[in-house]
Amino acid sequence: MTRLRTVACLLPLAALTLAQSPAPQVFGYRDFAQQAKWDKVFMAVPDAALAGQHLKTLTAAPHWASSPEDYATAVYVADKFKAAGLETQIIPYKVLLTKPVKIVIEAFDADGKKLMSGPTPEHVDPNKFGGDPFQDDPRILPAFNGSSPSGDVTAEVIYANYGTLADFQQLAKLGISVKGKIVLVRYGENFRGIKTYIAQQYGAVGVLIYSDPADDGYFRGDIYPRGPYRPETAVQRGSIQFLPIYPGDPTTPGVASTPDLPDSKRIPIDKLQNNQPTIPTNPLSYHDAAPILKALGGAESPRDWQGALPFTYHLGATGTLGAGGNLGAGGTHSTPPKITVHMHLEQDVALRTIWDVTGTIDGTDPAQKEDWVVAGNHRDAWVYGAVDPNSGTAAMLETVHGLGELLKQGWKPQRRIVICSWDAEEEGLIGSTEWAEQHETHLAHAVAYFNTDVGVAGPNFDAAAVPSLKQFVREVTKEVASPKGGTVYEQWKADQATAPTRRSRKPIESTDSDVHIGTLGSGSDYTPFIQHLGVPSTDIGSEGPYGVYHSVFDNYNWFTKFADPTFVYEQQQARVFGLEILHMADADVLPYDYQLYGKEIVGYLEAAQKQATTKNLTLDFTAAQAAASRFAAAGAAIRAAQSAPPSNPAALNQSLREAEGALLNPEGLPKRSWYKHTIYAPGEFTGYAAVVIPGVNEGIDAPDAPRAQSQLAALAAALNRSAAILESANKEAAK
Amino acid sequence: MTRLRTVACLLPLAALTLAQSPAPQVFGYRDFAQQAKWDKVFMAVPDAALAGQHLKTLTAAPHWASSPEDYATAVYVADKFKAAGLETQIIPYKVLLTKPVKIVIEAFDADGKKLMSGPTPEHVDPNKFGGDPFQDDPRILPAFNGSSPSGDVTAEVIYANYGTLADFQQLAKLGISVKGKIVLVRYGENFRGIKTYIAQQYGAVGVLIYSDPADDGYFRGDIYPRGPYRPETAVQRGSIQFLPIYPGDPTTPGVASTPDLPDSKRIPIDKLQNNQPTIPTNPLSYHDAAPILKALGGAESPRDWQGALPFTYHLGATGTLGAGGNLGAGGTHSTPPKITVHMHLEQDVALRTIWDVTGTIDGTDPAQKEDWVVAGNHRDAWVYGAVDPNSGTAAMLETVHGLGELLKQGWKPQRRIVICSWDAEEEGLIGSTEWAEQHETHLAHAVAYFNTDVGVAGPNFDAAAVPSLKQFVREVTKEVASPKGGTVYEQWKADQATAPTRRSRKPIESTDSDVHIGTLGSGSDYTPFIQHLGVPSTDIGSEGPYGVYHSVFDNYNWFTKFADPTFVYEQQQARVFGLEILHMADADVLPYDYQLYGKEIVGYLEAAQKQATTKNLTLDFTAAQAAASRFAAAGAAIRAAQSAPPSNPAALNQSLREAEGALLNPEGLPKRSWYKHTIYAPGEFTGYAAVVIPGVNEGIDAPDAPRAQSQLAALAAALNRSAAILESANKEAAK
Repeated sequence: MTRLRTVACLLPLAALTLAQSPAPQVFGYRDFAQQAKWDKVFMAVPDAALAGQHLKTLTAAPHWASSPEDYATAVYVADKFKAAGLETQIIPYKVLLTKPVKIVIEAFDADGKKLMSGPTPEHVDPNKFGGDPFQDDPRILPAFNGSSPSGDVTAEVIYANYGTLADFQQLAKLGISVKGKIVLVRYGENFRGIKTYIAQQYGAVGVLIYSDPADDGYFRGDIYPRGPYRPETAVQRGSIQFLPIYPGDPTTPGVASTPDLPDSKRIPIDKLQNNQPTIPTNPLSYHDAAPILKALGGAESPRDWQGALPFTYHLGATGTLGAGGNLGAGGTHSTPPKITVHMHLEQDVALRTIWDVTGTIDGTDPAQKEDWVVAGNHRDAWVYGAVDPNSGTAAMLETVHGLGELLKQGWKPQRRIVICSWDAEEEGLIGSTEWAEQHETHLAHAVAYFNTDVGVAGPNFDAAAVPSLKQFVREVTKEVASPKGGTVYEQWKADQATAPTRRSRKPIESTDSDVHIGTLGSGSDYTPFIQHLGVPSTDIGSEGPYGVYHSVFDNYNWFTKFADPTFVYEQQQARVFGLEILHMADADVLPYDYQLYGKEIVGYLEAAQKQATTKNLTLDFTAAQAAASRFAAAGAAIRAAQSAPPSNPAALNQSLREAEGALLNPEGLPKRSWYKHTIYAPGEFTGYAAVVIPGVNEGIDAPDAPRAQSQLAALAAALNRSAAILESANKEAAK
Repeated sequence: MTRLRTVACLLPLAALTLAQSPAPQVFGYRDFAQQAKWDKVFMAVPDAALAGQHLKTLTAAPHWASSPEDYATAVYVADKFKAAGLETQIIPYKVLLTKPVKIVIEAFDADGKKLMSGPTPEHVDPNKFGGDPFQDDPRILPAFNGSSPSGDVTAEVIYANYGTLADFQQLAKLGISVKGKIVLVRYGENFRGIKTYIAQQYGAVGVLIYSDPADDGYFRGDIYPRGPYRPETAVQRGSIQFLPIYPGDPTTPGVASTPDLPDSKRIPIDKLQNNQPTIPTNPLSYHDAAPILKALGGAESPRDWQGALPFTYHLGATGTLGAGGNLGAGGTHSTPPKITVHMHLEQDVALRTIWDVTGTIDGTDPAQKEDWVVAGNHRDAWVYGAVDPNSGTAAMLETVHGLGELLKQGWKPQRRIVICSWDAEEEGLIGSTEWAEQHETHLAHAVAYFNTDVGVAGPNFDAAAVPSLKQFVREVTKEVASPKGGTVYEQWKADQATAPTRRSRKPIESTDSDVHIGTLGSGSDYTPFIQHLGVPSTDIGSEGPYGVYHSVFDNYNWFTKFADPTFVYEQQQARVFGLEILHMADADVLPYDYQLYGKEIVGYLEAAQKQATTKNLTLDFTAAQAAASRFAAAGAAIRAAQSAPPSNPAALNQSLREAEGALLNPEGLPKRSWYKHTIYAPGEFTGYAAVVIPGVNEGIDAPDAPRAQSQLAALAAALNRSAAILESANKEAAK
């Protein structure tokens, strides 16, 4: 743990003349001119080559959370924070992590002949297309799924497509049971932990998750090292923690896993079923999955379950369809051959030390210096993590570099800035969750959390945000130049126009015609901030044809060939991230747009009501709709007040911040009380993707009318609380 | 050539009591009751087991047009016609056919190493899933494309997706020239001859057309003999004649190729470029295409050009994209390796004798006995042709069986019925075209041509028809029981509701909400009738998962495993086909629906006008629209007259028939004067698929405003001619 006080120094005024065009009007500022000057000073600093150096250093070795190499990256980040003048801490937590000791996956045909024996090490031909210089490091852990229990099972195999709830339901409808079976599913469509969550509920005894070439392999484009897509042996690692129940250290939901936390305050390891799977689960490459899948008999899979491997996919059982499967005229197969898989996983599940790094710049405004602006990115990686997450880390260090330069020139933020480098995000958002749980009181009046995870995977900027910050993100991107020419905003808009379906972060609703901004689901560190504590959040990054996610090949070689060879998108990312921080730290009035927020919620309720009708549920939406309309009206009114801010906006700002907090329901969601937000949560059956007004929508989907009705009431109460805060601030402002 | 007079005999009246429910009102009949009785008698006759026997006999050997085995099938069919009491003829024509002598396809990599040497014989493992009992017959011709010239070329290869006009245009846009290259394209999307037609215009020196597993192989479902889809070595043969220019014997457009036709009346073989390709073209299995495609370097293909082979498809050249192709962030490949293909084709192109078979039943109505009802199906096959075409032939023979029974019971049709078994359809609709050209004068007052080609490929009935006969087809299918329960009509409707996109014969417009009926394009024997002579036509059949089209495996073994094991769909087909004939032969008033026809034409014009606007063409649609409205109004009026027919409907019937004939433009279409119909033609760049109001639409697509405008005038003139005939008949009826 180290601390370093900022040493400020002045720079010649010349640096401020960078502002060449008249400063635009920016929401939240009485007069943007001064901020525009600081923005220009800031933007001149982030350096592409330096970002490249950070990336190269951070990704020189595999740095799985809690490893010595992970600690070395913490020290590197802390040094950069300190060098920029931030008050820096390396903060350890003691958390439950799974480490693989032995992984054996074998498959046998009906005669006991071995079909495959794995897992095959991740490897590409060193003599073709330049090979890969990182693949042979002995510190690489075997590919595994974090949170999978140990196990030794042998069972027949059923193919279950993406392992979504709909997929398992369809199998059941076809009369095919997965009870006592090992389920083979492909990556995609939902968070991988959900695949196991559902398989387990359906009685499966093991899960194998493979990467189909249809989803991120040769079907998408050339494979590494010829191109950016997943090669034959590459495996997607990843946590299968039941993230939608709660994230963070599984033993301490709601409590920070500080090193001194007594064991008595932790849930014992054998009582973690709520959050930890009970059936062994392991990832596979398609090299290892193909022989199993090819040997499966039984009914043909539904045709939209077919991937890009060169044979017809079968389910492994005939079910009620009969052996002919779903052929138009029937086939003539007999009982499918019995294909069995043997999975033997030995996991070392233990409390391990991880290290967050924080760097703080104190705020100067006495009324608001405790209103933290938090920005973060995780640092730990499954292997090298060039894209995920260290493209974000490298950019963030250049953001910090820019903040340091501002500090040197005498700038101070009104609000406190806290820059965070999270650890053990990959295992379940652990570093961020423990820190957020530790700082719950402070964060109750944090004004924003800005996240980045995959900072740069390619040239296409994209973002997700709470609706109150959508316009804020757009304004920031209008100030930053794109390497493609024009501004980031313009390129973002053009990209959405030409490739509207490519974005991974789709909005649930689009109530305005501007650039679409995604809805925050989960799968990254904003979750504890927005969904547990109600801190308005955004998540930004730049996307591309990224096929090596969570494999050995997400490394510096891949990055410099396919993502950002000259690090100019790193520079862009550092600038956008930095401007988010600067504007939120110094805006006169908090630039939240509750008008748009209100409109979107009204839309969510309309969609939910339609869905309820489809499901033949009789629900009374009157009170919730009235509350949403009231909230939307109050949002529209306060927007006017924000545009003409009072000379002392402290009270207004406090109300604006409290309005988001009021959307939390202290009881949390049914079955998962850690999630408090009434508008956003990761879906119980999606994981990554958000479910909006989750209590209501999941009640409808169940379907469970009484639950949905009581969640409508909880939503109405939250919206009325929030609207009342905004209304009273409106009255105050009108005086 | 043989003749046999029908010997009529009476059957007990009991057979007529089959009509149990009250006869429905059927359009065209004053009183349907008597017809309903005959329908029942007829429908009791077609026999599933007999259809199976016909099929087994017809497909016992490969019977390529002009072969001795083909002649044997003609004799079989003629015998069945005679046995039923039809006046029967075997009619020879002497026509130009291509027969392969030697086919060599080889590919080499940049070092001259052989990548493949083919073509590989079509073969499946005899020890798996029952093997195939037909694959080793020495009479099987090597897989080839009819109408391909001989040639011996060696050139580099470019992949051009489906070889559509849009595909070649996209290559050009990417800066990739096919000049001097061999183009590798996949089957699908257009008629195969069009692939060569366009490739040739773009300067290619050869074309290889392969079957991608994405289109009819393992990606669709299990491959033969496990399932119905195309196995690895199976090849799609087929003609590449330029069908949209004119079909039939290439040497005699517009003239019948009777055996005595002097050579001076034929176009010399070296002057056939208008209709015959000049560059060698051959089909390939994916077994033979994969090594070539896999070796291709250069830019990645556009992602929607990717098929289901297990590698990323490349174009074979870099073009202006650079070596990285269409990757988001660019790749680093150098010049693509030089993959060359050697094609050596020796074709024996000669005049050969083919044999149509016709069977006639004279009409009894003195006024209408020359108003022929023609029904036909082709008999020749690329190899065994179990589905294509002999599933249609077997059913047609059972239709004839039923007609024979009616004759025995004393029934006689009002109009003359002519049943036709065409030869050399596969080479370019030759048997039907020559016969139609020979009988042009008679056919000018033929009242209908009913086609079937693929009679049964599976259980899903479907149809295409000229709009005036759509309701007619629907009414017929309401009378026939489906093996699935209910009527054919009900099952057809249910099938469309559950699988709306499966149908291969999609309608261009759907102006009514009833069962959709496709638009007649080309690729089967209705073309000379509707598009050259203006005989109202329909085309019916029953579809399924038919992946072995034009391969060795379209044989009796495949058919009885996957299409119709108990021949009940054969029976259904025989019944529907028979009722079409019976109703058209005996209706009091011709059951044409010019109201619907008019509505559809109004819709075609609206769509064309939109397309013209999109293309920024200034065209005057006023006259054509006025003519279409006039035609539609006259059509609606005459429908009322048809519903209350005069006691002597001869004049009305004559007008109804003439109204279709008036839609012909004696000048024909630009560049292809053989096609006379102003409303329907195969598209110049589609082949199979219809282009509606083709002169206008192809003028717009070119784009060529003067041509489009003059075609609008020709269309308006045709519609006005036809409307005038209907109006005058209306006036007559109102008297």
